[in-house]
Amino acid sequence: MRPSGRTPEQPRDIRITRHYTRHAEGSVLIEFGDTKVICTASVENKVPPFLRGEGKGWITAEYGMLPRSTGSRMGREAARGKQGGRTVEIQRLIGRSLRAAVDLSALGEHTITVDCDVIQADGGTRTAAITGGCVALVDALNHLVAEKRLKKSPLKQMVAAVSVGVYKGTPVVDLDYPEDSEAETDMNVIMTDQGGFIEIQGTAEGAPFVQEELDSMLTLARQGITRLFEIQQEALSA
Amino acid sequence: MRPSGRTPEQPRDIRITRHYTRHAEGSVLIEFGDTKVICTASVENKVPPFLRGEGKGWITAEYGMLPRSTGSRMGREAARGKQGGRTVEIQRLIGRSLRAAVDLSALGEHTITVDCDVIQADGGTRTAAITGGCVALVDALNHLVAEKRLKKSPLKQMVAAVSVGVYKGTPVVDLDYPEDSEAETDMNVIMTDQGGFIEIQGTAEGAPFVQEELDSMLTLARQGITRLFEIQQEALSA
Amino acid sequence: MRPSGRTPEQPRDIRITRHYTRHAEGSVLIEFGDTKVICTASVENKVPPFLRGEGKGWITAEYGMLPRSTGSRMGREAARGKQGGRTVEIQRLIGRSLRAAVDLSALGEHTITVDCDVIQADGGTRTAAITGGCVALVDALNHLVAEKRLKKSPLKQMVAAVSVGVYKGTPVVDLDYPEDSEAETDMNVIMTDQGGFIEIQGTAEGAPFVQEELDSMLTLARQGITRLFEIQQEALSA
Amino acid sequence: MRPSGRTPEQPRDIRITRHYTRHAEGSVLIEFGDTKVICTASVENKVPPFLRGEGKGWITAEYGMLPRSTGSRMGREAARGKQGGRTVEIQRLIGRSLRAAVDLSALGEHTITVDCDVIQADGGTRTAAITGGCVALVDALNHLVAEKRLKKSPLKQMVAAVSVGVYKGTPVVDLDYPEDSEAETDMNVIMTDQGGFIEIQGTAEGAPFVQEELDSMLTLARQGITRLFEIQQEALSA
Amino acid sequence: MRPSGRTPEQPRDIRITRHYTRHAEGSVLIEFGDTKVICTASVENKVPPFLRGEGKGWITAEYGMLPRSTGSRMGREAARGKQGGRTVEIQRLIGRSLRAAVDLSALGEHTITVDCDVIQADGGTRTAAITGGCVALVDALNHLVAEKRLKKSPLKQMVAAVSVGVYKGTPVVDLDYPEDSEAETDMNVIMTDQGGFIEIQGTAEGAPFVQEELDSMLTLARQGITRLFEIQQEALSA
Amino acid sequence: MRPSGRTPEQPRDIRITRHYTRHAEGSVLIEFGDTKVICTASVENKVPPFLRGEGKGWITAEYGMLPRSTGSRMGREAARGKQGGRTVEIQRLIGRSLRAAVDLSALGEHTITVDCDVIQADGGTRTAAITGGCVALVDALNHLVAEKRLKKSPLKQMVAAVSVGVYKGTPVVDLDYPEDSEAETDMNVIMTDQGGFIEIQGTAEGAPFVQEELDSMLTLARQGITRLFEIQQEALSA
Repeated sequence: MRPSGRTPEQPRDIRITRHYTRHAEGSVLIEFGDTKVICTASVENKVPPFLRGEGKGWITAEYGMLPRSTGSRMGREAARGKQGGRTVEIQRLIGRSLRAAVDLSALGEHTITVDCDVIQADGGTRTAAITGGCVALVDALNHLVAEKRLKKSPLKQMVAAVSVGVYKGTPVVDLDYPEDSEAETDMNVIMTDQGGFIEIQGTAEGAPFVQEELDSMLTLARQGITRLFEIQQEALSA
Repeated sequence: MRPSGRTPEQPRDIRITRHYTRHAEGSVLIEFGDTKVICTASVENKVPPFLRGEGKGWITAEYGMLPRSTGSRMGREAARGKQGGRTVEIQRLIGRSLRAAVDLSALGEHTITVDCDVIQADGGTRTAAITGGCVALVDALNHLVAEKRLKKSPLKQMVAAVSVGVYKGTPVVDLDYPEDSEAETDMNVIMTDQGGFIEIQGTAEGAPFVQEELDSMLTLARQGITRLFEIQQEALSA
Repeated sequence: MRPSGRTPEQPRDIRITRHYTRHAEGSVLIEFGDTKVICTASVENKVPPFLRGEGKGWITAEYGMLPRSTGSRMGREAARGKQGGRTVEIQRLIGRSLRAAVDLSALGEHTITVDCDVIQADGGTRTAAITGGCVALVDALNHLVAEKRLKKSPLKQMVAAVSVGVYKGTPVVDLDYPEDSEAETDMNVIMTDQGGFIEIQGTAEGAPFVQEELDSMLTLARQGITRLFEIQQEALSA
Repeated sequence: MRPSGRTPEQPRDIRITRHYTRHAEGSVLIEFGDTKVICTASVENKVPPFLRGEGKGWITAEYGMLPRSTGSRMGREAARGKQGGRTVEIQRLIGRSLRAAVDLSALGEHTITVDCDVIQADGGTRTAAITGGCVALVDALNHLVAEKRLKKSPLKQMVAAVSVGVYKGTPVVDLDYPEDSEAETDMNVIMTDQGGFIEIQGTAEGAPFVQEELDSMLTLARQGITRLFEIQQEALSA
Repeated sequence: MRPSGRTPEQPRDIRITRHYTRHAEGSVLIEFGDTKVICTASVENKVPPFLRGEGKGWITAEYGMLPRSTGSRMGREAARGKQGGRTVEIQRLIGRSLRAAVDLSALGEHTITVDCDVIQADGGTRTAAITGGCVALVDALNHLVAEKRLKKSPLKQMVAAVSVGVYKGTPVVDLDYPEDSEAETDMNVIMTDQGGFIEIQGTAEGAPFVQEELDSMLTLARQGITRLFEIQQEALSA
Repeated sequence: MRPSGRTPEQPRDIRITRHYTRHAEGSVLIEFGDTKVICTASVENKVPPFLRGEGKGWITAEYGMLPRSTGSRMGREAARGKQGGRTVEIQRLIGRSLRAAVDLSALGEHTITVDCDVIQADGGTRTAAITGGCVALVDALNHLVAEKRLKKSPLKQMVAAVSVGVYKGTPVVDLDYPEDSEAETDMNVIMTDQGGFIEIQGTAEGAPFVQEELDSMLTLARQGITRLFEIQQEALSA
């Protein structure tokens, strides 16, 4: 029934490649099927003005899509002179989610910027970005420990994200673009590896959704994210 | 226990004043306690480029805060030359929510822009904006009928919104600023008067939240929104 | 003869409501008939770079119109990414006028920003903004005294403004929008309560104006502003 | 008494050079002493959107200063990405003043843009720009007649401008920079060659000014502008 | 002598991967050693305003670097709201170079935009972008033929580019970042596969260069580019 | 054969007027025939952030064209809110070229900004800007010596620039606009008075150019620039 032939609870093939580019403290290519996102974590020895002198660190994220990562070319945001509303909304979500992974008080006065650049898009770019960005973040934190700039990693918990939705009346996990563009409801769920929710964003694109559908979607999300935590661990222990 | 002395399930005093300013097709002042938002709905006889020639209409929203609507003055976005990320995120949410109220195919080639300008802020500005914006939208739709530009109102259902959260361990409804700034979890719930969800956005600010807390918050939201639909109807029938 | 039925020397009903919003050090709603402007005065403990270390203070103003304060919706300046020329021109005028009210050397290193936001427009928004902004400014200065951040108020004199013009050949005071859009000459006069001129800006929209018309307009302005000073005092002593 | 040794009613040496650059339909270098402004008038066969289909023309102006036209280098507005408030205020004044010179209904669907670029500044750049811009405008109108795009010139009257002010207690005409930066009052007066006022902008920089000073300044302005009209005519008949 | 151990006339390992992403009409990953650039060619059925109605096509290019493609993170141009001077300079060079490859009159009213996004930078990004961009362009032109939107490919000639420079007194080809940052002279040479020059940009970073050095560099460039044309052909015939 | 009747190796009449405006430390009007550029050099007692504390100075350049310096009016860059790509490319070239003239280590912590503003354009504005800008720069350096802010001038060598090209099959020097807009190849050559190249930028606008044409163009450039150095010296010794 799904265009890809997947079962409702079946995510796409997910691959995480660490050390993808060589300059960043953390650099990951994450693939959710045909969705491909480069996530790099960059460390700087300073914090934003609102945190100066507090002895704490900060995690922030930026998001972009290559102009032809999509079916038809989008105007380049740098050329248009501003980031679009969708971009801003997504990068704020990624930043909030990744901050939940780290004890900022134990990070010292460092800022880690996680850049999530979509090379190829097929739905689910923001959930891929969070899931891959967390791995890049772990590598950057470990780099700070290896360089003795921190005594131990301030990582509190892993964070991962998956989309769920109601497609032709059936709740499904990890929607690709053909599903996403027709789904009645689309929900992004961000969780910790200890089972708590970091963020839930569910939107009825067509008909409103009801509690029962919400519950089914959350069940699918929980299963899907459990698989993501395994893939993150495999990548990190490779 | 709440700073305002309210019980967990008690919203603030909510007031809706229609015909608040005289030029707009719909103009509402909505007050959620000390949060005050002017919502105006403006009709134009055109649609955005992506809808031209399709015979459908469009609903969009813009959001702003007066620089001193808050405790300390914020820089004016028009002077800084760009809208902040929070503003963009909120106005996209308001727009999506209000589009769910209307059958766009029956709106004809009109655009209705709902401007939500915060005069005074004390938490919950986005939920007030959606709830008041829907009333302004109804007035603008009825104006189109009264002027014989539409045969009947394309309103499908009313839409309202409330925030819920976990404050000092207890789920509460309609958080004011002192609560909002300390809540562990903050969730905005947008529903239709037929009981469906339009959007759920829940964010763990501190510790992650669990399914049980989510369920409690949704129950509180459902109760609170039911009261909002009554207040909307009282205003519209006045 | 005037569309409103007023006599040439009759201003509109003018109302000043102090403490209109609760966060600002000074907050005033001023109404010149259907023109409604919220004026807030915000105090900051710093001065612009060109004044640093001089022991003086600064007064500045910003002006904005809600998009649907007018008969047809104007684009939101924050969304367009720049303030229009008219906005810039008006806020510079307000700032210059209000600085004349205060002994900046006695203000200490404080900046007071007066935000004038037009909720509803019917002509004369800049004169309403100056007249109401001066009351908000007085409240902010008194606040500094009450908080013992200044020993005495550095207020030198009150400032108020009114528009005059030649409408259908007759000089009239306090033009509303129907008059303003057809007037041959439009002049804004800003005075002190000691009878001096702070600023005169007269523009021939149609035929040039002559000395005799100028004199008539200035006479009307003087009378109108005298009434404004009374209304300011009534508000301040309430 | 004046730093330049001039008498109060004595303007600076004023020179107008027509055909200063070779591409524009009208091109003038105007010098008010050490203030030097290039004014070019450019004709286009189109009108702004708000005038389309009305059979009328439009006159507009833009103003700029070379970065080192002043004593210390100012940032280039093109590099900073926006025109400053002073620039916007001045170019709106020039545009309004020059529109008064022409019967726009008789201009046909042409736009004439008058660019006023300050090569060297020593006070009075806006009055020089208006006075020189009017000559460039006349040349552009005559060019349209010579090219048979108009039957006769739609020029209604000449327009010129001069500054007056109160310097060390004495009203003086055509202030240079040393005077301008210390004057208590500064007023720009724009008149037609038939004796009417197009615009009066008087600002008290220090103490307020009174009716008597206003009258003295207007008398000086009238005399000074009479001389400017002679200089314009000499240039145009050369 | 070269940091990489290469001989002066030895370029880096160069690899071209076609069909790198799946949406674009042409998509190439080009690697000049550690410099990696994604080049996509996107076809649109329209031309810029200055070409409308002329029956010709247009080729243009845009260039960007991922924020952490370099040793330390650069600010994202989309977030800063403008493209830097270096970016603008490079994308204009790429566009001019690629237009030389195509008979624009035979392209029909199509625009092809070649986006060159640097994933990892180690010197020579602009020459890699031109060399890889030409392959992506060929694929896009062949796509137009395959889709019967053109009868035959309007390709006139292949274009490739290489950098040469004087490093520690010796002319060398294809400088990597350690060389580039210390070279006395840096020159980018763009040629056609028929032996003509499209563009030469040589810059003395330190001491001026003389005719003899210029000749040596051009000889090296010619050799290097000959090798690039072979690699392009291998990729295109794969 | 050339539209102007010049021989291939004949530059236009070139004139340099020093002390053209009175505020700048160096101010030059340079004319290459009908191309007229004002070049001012402004000294500031500070350096950009990347040089702070290094005891060195900096030279930078900005370039602009008056809107009607050209045959048809161009939009004003300050009004459009950004500098165009061509402007950015040119001002970077001017800056690089002029830095080659000066020993930055001996300049002290000063920044000299050379503003090149085109009053009238007829081809070759960038080469005129470099040639005239170098004279303004020399005057500014000598000003620093005269004011005892430097012991001796840090000038290393003079720099000048000329364009060469292939027009109707013949290499020619110093192209004017009618030639430039039809030339097959256009090359800008910047040299020092000691015979070295600072920058070569050659672009095939039509057919590619070959080594022999390159050699001819460089020979013409060398001759033309030799004449420019004489004219610079005449001006500086006047």
